[in-house]
This record gives sequence, C-alpha cells and structure tokens, in this order.
Amino acid sequence: MTHRFRDLLALEPLTADELTFLLDQSKPFQEIQKHPLKKLAALRGKTVALAFFESSTRTRISFGTAASRLGADTMNLQAEASSLKKGESLLDTVHTLNAMKPDCLVMRHAASGAAEFVARHLDIPVINAGDGTHEHPSQGLLDALTIRDRKGKIENLNITILGDIQHSRVARSNIHLLGKFGCRFTLCGPAMWVPRELEQIAPQTSVRRVFEIEEALDGADVVLVLRVQTERLHEPALSANDYVLLYQLNSERLRGAKADAIVLHPGPMNRGIEISPEVADGPQSCVLEQVTNGIAVRMALLFLLAAGHNGEGSHPATDAQQQQQRNRRATDVKDSSHAAR
Amino acid sequence: MTHRFRDLLALEPLTADELTFLLDQSKPFQEIQKHPLKKLAALRGKTVALAFFESSTRTRISFGTAASRLGADTMNLQAEASSLKKGESLLDTVHTLNAMKPDCLVMRHAASGAAEFVARHLDIPVINAGDGTHEHPSQGLLDALTIRDRKGKIENLNITILGDIQHSRVARSNIHLLGKFGCRFTLCGPAMWVPRELEQIAPQTSVRRVFEIEEALDGADVVLVLRVQTERLHEPALSANDYVLLYQLNSERLRGAKADAIVLHPGPMNRGIEISPEVADGPQSCVLEQVTNGIAVRMALLFLLAAGHNGEGSHPATDAQQQQQRNRRATDVKDSSHAAR
Amino acid sequence: MTHRFRDLLALEPLTADELTFLLDQSKPFQEIQKHPLKKLAALRGKTVALAFFESSTRTRISFGTAASRLGADTMNLQAEASSLKKGESLLDTVHTLNAMKPDCLVMRHAASGAAEFVARHLDIPVINAGDGTHEHPSQGLLDALTIRDRKGKIENLNITILGDIQHSRVARSNIHLLGKFGCRFTLCGPAMWVPRELEQIAPQTSVRRVFEIEEALDGADVVLVLRVQTERLHEPALSANDYVLLYQLNSERLRGAKADAIVLHPGPMNRGIEISPEVADGPQSCVLEQVTNGIAVRMALLFLLAAGHNGEGSHPATDAQQQQQRNRRATDVKDSSHAAR
Repeated sequence: MTHRFRDLLALEPLTADELTFLLDQSKPFQEIQKHPLKKLAALRGKTVALAFFESSTRTRISFGTAASRLGADTMNLQAEASSLKKGESLLDTVHTLNAMKPDCLVMRHAASGAAEFVARHLDIPVINAGDGTHEHPSQGLLDALTIRDRKGKIENLNITILGDIQHSRVARSNIHLLGKFGCRFTLCGPAMWVPRELEQIAPQTSVRRVFEIEEALDGADVVLVLRVQTERLHEPALSANDYVLLYQLNSERLRGAKADAIVLHPGPMNRGIEISPEVADGPQSCVLEQVTNGIAVRMALLFLLAAGHNGEGSHPATDAQQQQQRNRRATDVKDSSHAAR
Repeated sequence: MTHRFRDLLALEPLTADELTFLLDQSKPFQEIQKHPLKKLAALRGKTVALAFFESSTRTRISFGTAASRLGADTMNLQAEASSLKKGESLLDTVHTLNAMKPDCLVMRHAASGAAEFVARHLDIPVINAGDGTHEHPSQGLLDALTIRDRKGKIENLNITILGDIQHSRVARSNIHLLGKFGCRFTLCGPAMWVPRELEQIAPQTSVRRVFEIEEALDGADVVLVLRVQTERLHEPALSANDYVLLYQLNSERLRGAKADAIVLHPGPMNRGIEISPEVADGPQSCVLEQVTNGIAVRMALLFLLAAGHNGEGSHPATDAQQQQQRNRRATDVKDSSHAAR
Repeated sequence: MTHRFRDLLALEPLTADELTFLLDQSKPFQEIQKHPLKKLAALRGKTVALAFFESSTRTRISFGTAASRLGADTMNLQAEASSLKKGESLLDTVHTLNAMKPDCLVMRHAASGAAEFVARHLDIPVINAGDGTHEHPSQGLLDALTIRDRKGKIENLNITILGDIQHSRVARSNIHLLGKFGCRFTLCGPAMWVPRELEQIAPQTSVRRVFEIEEALDGADVVLVLRVQTERLHEPALSANDYVLLYQLNSERLRGAKADAIVLHPGPMNRGIEISPEVADGPQSCVLEQVTNGIAVRMALLFLLAAGHNGEGSHPATDAQQQQQRNRRATDVKDSSHAAR
C-alpha cells in the first residue's frame, strides 16, 4: 500500500487504513530507540524548521531529537524571540522561514486552524504540533501506538477521558483516531469543561458524558488523564482541593476500571491534582512509554514527509534497520577507520 | 583573482572589485538552495560562534542555517540569556567564547562599531551581523545579489530608499556597496529621519533627499523600503495613519517608478504601514528572494572566512558543486551503504 | 588502570588516583583544541541532554560544544522555557527527558544535591554542572588541569581563595580535589562569607581563614578569585567600594604572592570589583586557559560516561589522536571525495 501525505494537520480526515499505515511506519523507529546508536542518515542534508509560536518544551525537544536522529538539521524559531513581536504577520514569518528552504515545517500555534492556514500557502510539508483547541495529531498517534503495544489492539476499547476536554486538542486527536477503530468514549470532568457538543464531535463514534468519576471509569480499558491548567480552575469555580476530591485519578478509583486498564497522560503532570503519585508511577501508567513513542512517531512522520522521495521503492522499516546496522559499525570506536568520515 | 578578507565588518572600505568577488562567490551557494540536498562538508569540523547581543530571529536563523549547510557546528550566545546581564564586559564575553576555539565569530550588537572593536582584539574572523546604525554588510550583499539577478546588473541604477534612513544600517550598507557601482540614491522619509548629512555619506556617490514620495519614486529602478519602528513614530510626531498617507509604498505610487522597478524590504515587514499588501506580494517584490539569497551570501562569507585554508587551490564554486553531487549520492537512501558513515 | 565512573556528581568522594585519571584523560582533548579541525566521531549517534534549571551561558555552551566536538547531538532544556514553570516536578521533567533516550544527562540546578537526587532515579550517567552551593566538579577539574599545566604539578601548593567562599560550589570542588594532593588552603573574604565551618570542610586538608588580604596572599602559589554577586554585598553590609578596598586582587597585592603565582577566576568577571583589569589581563592570569581547558575536561567526561562502551580496549587518548588524524584527512577540502560521506 502506498500512502501519500503531503502534510499532517489533523487526524480527523484520515481513514482507519491511513492511520494504521502511520502507526505501522512508527514501529521500526520504536525499535531504534532501544539501540545504543539511534542515528540514521535518512534525512542527511535536509532541514526541518521548528516554529513554535506557543511555548513548549517537550514537544519541541521531541521533534528536534526526532529530526537529529534522522540526520536532519533544524531551524528553531520560538515565538518569544521571534519577529512576531515586531508586528510581522504569521504568514510573512512562515514565508520567510520557507524562503530559507527547509524541507518541512513543524509548527505549534495558539490559534485553531493555524497549521492548516499556513499549509495552504506553503509548498513544503507542514506538521501540526498543536493548534489551539483543535488537534495535536502526533500526540494522538503516539497515544494510539502506546495503547496498541499495551493492549495488543486499538479496536473496540472503552476509553475514559478525564478533565478539561473542551480545551484539549489532545482529547480531540484521540477521539478522531481511536473512534475510527470502534473505540467508545466516556468524557468526565466539570460540566463546563465537558459541554454537550462534544457528544457530536465524531459522528460515527460513541461519545457519552458522565459526571461521576466512579461511573466514568467503570469498564474502562484506557484512562486518558488530561492536564489541569490550574489557572483555569476559576471557570468551573473549583478550588484545587475540590478538583482532587471530584476528579483526581487515584488508586482507589482506578480499581473501578478494568483490571488491565492502562493510564495515559500527555504531560506535564500536576502530580497530586489530576493524578495521584501512586497512579502516575504505577504499573498501569504509560506516561514514559508515551514520551519514548513520541520520538518514534515523529521520526516516522518526518521521514515520510520531509524525505522528498517519491514513495516508491525503499521502505523505512527495512532501511532503518539496515542503516542502524551500518551506523553501529560506522561509529564503533574500535572500527574507527570508518567512524571519522 | 585572490582576495584576502580576514573579517567582514563593513562594506564601506571595500572596493568594487572586492564587492564583485563576494557577489560572485555567492553564486554557487545560490544554486545549492535549489537542490534537494543543500548540505556540504566544506566546514566539517569547524565551529561558528553566533553572538547576538541584540535580539534577532531571521538573521540568526539565516547564519545558523548557512553554517549547518556548510557542515559546521554552532555555538549560540544570545544576550537575553548571556552573562552580560551579570555585568561582564563585551570584550570578556567574546574572549571567553573565543577561548572555546570557534573558527569564526558572527556578532550583532546595538552599538555602532562594536564588531570592529571586537575584531581588533580577536585572532579569529569576525562577521558583523549588524552594529547599531552603522552597517549590516551581509544584508547589503544579499540586496545587491538580488538586484543583480533581477536587473542583470548593479551598475548605474536609480535607487530610492524610503523610511527612517537615519537609523538604518541596512540603508548605509546599500549605499556603500551600490554607490561604488555608480548607482544614484534618492532618500525619502520624514525630514528628521533623512537629515542633510546623509547626502555626504559616500563622497563619490550621488545622494539626494526628496520629501515628496511621488517625486522620489520617479524614474526608480529599485525601491528599498525600510521597516518603520512604530515605537519611533513619535520622533517626527507622526501617527501611523500619517505615515501611511505620506510615505507608504502602495501600488499607485509604485506605478510612478520605472515599469520594471523592483521592491526590496529587509523584513520583518509592517504590512499596511510602510508597504501595502499588494506591493509586498506583487510581482515586483523581491522580499522572499532576499531571504533565500541571505543564506547563499552567508554561506559564501562563512566559507571564505571560517574555512581557514590559505586561499590557493580549491575554488568554492567548483568544490561546492562537486560536494553537492557527492552529498546527493551519499545521502541517497537507496545507496545507503555509504550514507551512514 | 581501569576506572569505572557511572556519574560525575562531586569531586569529594573521588580518590587522588581517580582524579589523576580524569585529568590525564583530558590531555588528548586539550591537544585537539589546538588543531584546525576539532571534531571527532567518538560519540556519533549519541545524544547528550543538557538540562539547565539555573541560567548559565558559558557552562552550557562549553558542554554543548564539547558534545558537538565528539560528534554527539544535544537536547537542550532550559528552565526559563521549561515545563517546570507549569508545576511539573524535577523528577518528572528528567524522567521525561530520559524517556527520549539520551545517553547522558548534564544538569545544573539551584538546589544542592539535585544532581545526586536525579542520578539515583535515572539509568543513564549524570554529570553535575553545578548544584546550589555544593559542587561544580567539571570546574574543579578544569582548574586543576590549568594549575598542573602552569605549575607542572598539583601537589603541595599554597592556594588562596578570595571572596564569597560560603556560597561557592567552585571553591568547594577545588578544595576537595586539590586537598587530596596535599595543597593547603587560605580562605579570605568578609567574615560572614568565610565562616569557621569551612575549616573542617575536608578533614585531611589544611584550611585556614585569614581576614587580611595581604596576609592571605603571602606565599601563595595559586590565587583563586571568586565572582562577587554584587546583589549579595548587602549581607556583609559592604559597598562595592568597600569590597574593592578590602578584597580586590590588584597588581600591588598580587606582588605579595610568590613571584610565579598564577591567578584563576571561574568567570564571568566583575572587572574592577573582585579583580583589577591589570591582573585579569596580566601574564599571571589563566582565565582564558581555564575556558579552553573546560572544553577538554568536558569532552573527556562525556567520552568516558556517554560512550557506553565497557571500558576495556580502546583508550581515548590514543583513539582521539588517531581519529583526529582521520578527521583531518576526511574533512580536508582538497581530499573531498571522502568529506561528504
């Protein structure tokens, strides 16, 4: 099967086949994270532009590391330091970056739809690293990859999402992806963070709202805990203590889910607020696997979108392993006659 | 012809021959920007120090990308994060950087003459990436390269510069470069931004002041629009609206220039202030070519100054193309037995 | 002799033999700083995470440059931009970084003991780049390397330390290292910055307090001048002028030390406060050698800790020189058929 993606802006428009393809493409890159040498030459001579108009640490480092491990160079634009402050338009900023001839643009922006808007105007692939409350597709993919590894499948699972779902692009990307595989969603949180419209977010997908956390967790295969923006607690007029009492995922509550339920969190975690330390560090928690899988997913995306090859021929899975072997030889300190080249 | 440049601090002292040499050196690096793989090994094992004591996004990314595409590593010092805040002297800061043994220092500083001051004390090449209101030589070179490509020559053109010329190092570098090729300058803007002294800036060069924009544009081959620092509009006591009415380059006014006139802007643009959107995006605008040429010029400068070879022998034009071919082979995913080395 | 270091958290627990080993390992990397090409392939395919939770310019650039010169990639986390602001715990932050699979973590933190705390929880080597007022081991090593080069030995020297010793991790690392070689310490500064407890800091080491700078300098082989945090001068209730009068190392006072005494300063210097310009720039000053040696020491540490080899076989000293020769060949522009690989 050949898939042609020019951009990755959202998971909503992708088919189950396309999503499976992207997850499968990530497998060999997961393997590479276990090797002593993780660097390939697949994007040698290529440049990945990272334009973060909204501050981020982990996602930016993850994409940057993914680019490096493919041999690419990066251009880093961060909003704090950028000319946006000087009144330049978003489009002028990205056109300027593009005129420096990167092979791909990874961008995060506080406005929903920003990545799609930019992609319509650029001739290079654009990867959405989070746009407002719309989508965060690489996060959706890494969550699905993590679930597939732990549960052996992503079909027909009961997924409970806890927290501020209304403002969460992570929740939306998860629903759009996993919903296509027959997963059923239970959303739970303060009422104003779980509005009725969310039930219609994905027409073919079962999404229900439940306001008692114990009921929401009952029968769950996967619990996705969202980060609480503590500065937003005034909206539902809750204190942090109230939130803990009503919605924190703790060990006792987690026992109400299926015995083999797993717990995901996109990070950074507010330990003791939306998640208890025992759950965060417990055997059901996948938070660190999510981070490792983030590198794999992003390597796969950059490889697919930034390599600029025509899709025929080489398959990254095989190539990646072959190159890994070559890299291992090449950088072996003892076989160093090749290493310095 | 062999030219020996240790530093690039200003364009004013360079001869027409030397300037032509620098523009010619940039040609092969312009070609490389069109190739799928843009990375050379010319500066492999070298380090370029980027010391920006004044904030900048595009120039810093441009030099950083130029260094990466030559295979060099970079050291990044930004004033915001630097120990200058802790009271260290400029000279101590650059001596410290230099003691880490970079091969070249690219620096921007708010004080006119800062780069020259530093160059007198260091034993490595210094490239001025903008010093106060003095010069921004790589910007002057990329503007000239853009003009030469579009007009087929840089000799004897009518250049109109619009805006705050008094505070513009970009304007000064342009006048010093293009003036040596017989170009004639018309400066136009609020009177206090276009003082009489500017007429004497380059003794052999025709520089006149005109305060009506229509008159200033009459017969222009090239229009260089400067960025308005809106926080400075209080100096000539103008509102933004006044500035638009009096000095904005819009389509109607541009029709008063020669039919084949081109428009340059160093960026970032204040769309709707000093330049109208139709002009910024129109066929006469060269703003994105300027950005692309910026990479080429900076690659040429870094190659000439940081390579540390003695000038005899290899010519970057030929070398760059040969290395490009090798790079293409080397990073071809299918010929990957070489790629991982 | 084989030494096994998993981490480098402090110099206090190391034996004289181990310290000598680390200094010896740095020698070949010192040589490399003198070569036109300084890049090795020793850590090609490896990633060094740099986590600076306390702002730093020179140490961060030094470690970053050391990593690059070994061929490693870096992940950069700076506290200003980090999710720590968002309330994530230190341990979650470093676990997250670690889940991206770097080969080594270099960290600076304002809390004494932070690096050791983190190292207990991670499965990768941790290098302490400064933790509160505890230790800054790579600074101690580079100081010792500088002293050994200048004095021909580090045994049985008289070392005078001037300034705020109480808050200085640099002073502590120096005392713990040099004390093991029989050096004797004289500490001098405002009384509340040189408390009596410091005399007991290293049981086998002679540490005395002297409050007259002339007496403190008498017979010194080495003078280590510490940076004055001018915002702390209120503690001993001194004006900057008072400090200069009482404790500044100037030429006249330096003449009271041994004729061949050397002067060290960890930087950044407050010229005219704790050190006079004549001393800072004079022939006895080693401040720039310290910076250059910092790269060498950090290359040695990263090579030893991040390479992940089992210690048997290859010796970095020999290897580094061989690889340097290969690098020189490989990146020689004239022999460029190999260069682009």
